[in-house]
Amino acid sequence: MTSGAKASWIAADWGTTNLRVWMLDEVGGIVHHASSEKGMGKLERREFEPVLLDLIDPFLTHGQKTPVVICGMAGSRQGWAEAPYRSAPCGPPSIEDATAVITKDARIDVRILPGIKQLDPADVMRGEETQIAGFLADHPDFTGTLCLPGTHTKWCEISFGIVKRFRTFMTGEIFSLLSEQSVLRHSLSKNAPDTEAFTNAVKHCVREPESLAAELFGIRAGSLVADLLPETARSRLSGLLIGSELASITKNFSVRRAVILGSDHIAQAYATALSGLGHSPQVMDASAITLRGLTLAHNAYRRLPQ
Amino acid sequence: MTSGAKASWIAADWGTTNLRVWMLDEVGGIVHHASSEKGMGKLERREFEPVLLDLIDPFLTHGQKTPVVICGMAGSRQGWAEAPYRSAPCGPPSIEDATAVITKDARIDVRILPGIKQLDPADVMRGEETQIAGFLADHPDFTGTLCLPGTHTKWCEISFGIVKRFRTFMTGEIFSLLSEQSVLRHSLSKNAPDTEAFTNAVKHCVREPESLAAELFGIRAGSLVADLLPETARSRLSGLLIGSELASITKNFSVRRAVILGSDHIAQAYATALSGLGHSPQVMDASAITLRGLTLAHNAYRRLPQ
Repeated sequence: MTSGAKASWIAADWGTTNLRVWMLDEVGGIVHHASSEKGMGKLERREFEPVLLDLIDPFLTHGQKTPVVICGMAGSRQGWAEAPYRSAPCGPPSIEDATAVITKDARIDVRILPGIKQLDPADVMRGEETQIAGFLADHPDFTGTLCLPGTHTKWCEISFGIVKRFRTFMTGEIFSLLSEQSVLRHSLSKNAPDTEAFTNAVKHCVREPESLAAELFGIRAGSLVADLLPETARSRLSGLLIGSELASITKNFSVRRAVILGSDHIAQAYATALSGLGHSPQVMDASAITLRGLTLAHNAYRRLPQ
Repeated sequence: MTSGAKASWIAADWGTTNLRVWMLDEVGGIVHHASSEKGMGKLERREFEPVLLDLIDPFLTHGQKTPVVICGMAGSRQGWAEAPYRSAPCGPPSIEDATAVITKDARIDVRILPGIKQLDPADVMRGEETQIAGFLADHPDFTGTLCLPGTHTKWCEISFGIVKRFRTFMTGEIFSLLSEQSVLRHSLSKNAPDTEAFTNAVKHCVREPESLAAELFGIRAGSLVADLLPETARSRLSGLLIGSELASITKNFSVRRAVILGSDHIAQAYATALSGLGHSPQVMDASAITLRGLTLAHNAYRRLPQ
């Protein structure tokens, strides 16, 4: 911690499981970064303010209001204060759409950015819209498909700054449940992945997505009667699930030059899968992109009537 | 308990989660029925014999060997004693294929029936082959598709007493995991099912099985932004999963006059789903069918050289 340094403003990404906070100076330099596992899912409404203050208190200035710009699940109905969704098609929400939160502590001015909803088919995002805003800041004319991988991976059709439509897949959460809690857990290991098995499984489920639940049991059966190796089994599980998602995506989105925002193993898996199908996805490091989106919102905040 | 009555032989269905035991007289009448939650999954190898004796001891005759015929996961590698699989295509295994278990107690002669394996695609069953044997006893000329619903539903092509091929779907286990442990659990209730929502979801996933993981998230989104009712959501979840299974089954098995063995709500769900697709499934009560299969094996046991 930079002792004594104060923040000009504060950015926060408050998801279901984690809270990440950046203390920033006047020109956007990071004074300090902190994170905590006190995600929205673990908190009562009255706990949000003290949890936030725990992380930011030393960086606040007495007798002055420091702006705090937040994105993510803190704005959900079960969160700190509801920030009603914008409706797609729309541009990523900005500070004008944010919900101002009344706090006990007079040193902070908290604004929570809304997410985006879609009515048909029903879908929602909270947090990803700020990543999209960050991406669009550097690619204002981008037209194409954006993939935001995660527990609930989102695919968005973007056209000149507008989120036209999007679709969320539970693939990541299903993978976690199956690999940790189903009968398949006995057949898997976390050894080095088997890329060939992964790619073959992707192709199989792109061709026959309806076979998914049978192919999943086939992993267990393969390890019992056909010497399927645990590391191969794990890659196969991942490939079957992502393949069945891509069977839908390749039908409904233009993926030839999709951009994947992310740098972790999930993002890499999507890139490998799309490449294996003959596409040329572009992977962009997303680590700084949420902060970029929050910064845009803060810059707009400065132009708000105070 | 019928005080003092002895068993002529004993039948047992020993699955992963439960043990069911029948004490029978000379002509197949049930002297006593007992069950326990000490399934294979909870037991060390050395615990099987004492667990069984706990239930059957009063019915054994001193100085005489009572036959005990067992089917199910007790015969798996992690079970009491491995009963190696028969390979499909084959008839349901009989007593000649059973594994004789050496017991400490001299009053019992334990035989475990094997399951059936299939190599391509890899698949296994343990317990269901005995239900199939029980069904075939009354329908020896049956040719068609048999559905055995459960946590891992099995579909079998049967032709004149032979299990030609089969396929297992993890649908039931996926339903449990999603409804109890995923983000969807917030959107569901166990109120009376919504049959129309169920049937519509089945049809949707038969038509577009690749949309499954997106439609699943759509349940959560629907409850957040489109007032989807919890009971409708639960029926929809069930329908989407069964529909995606049926997309595969209707392509790969002859379902026009499929027979569903079972009487619980899972069997009813498959029947409703198939009927909604214009088929005419027949549901047969399966409660006595495992005992029927074990009895067949025991009748053959009596003909074995002792």
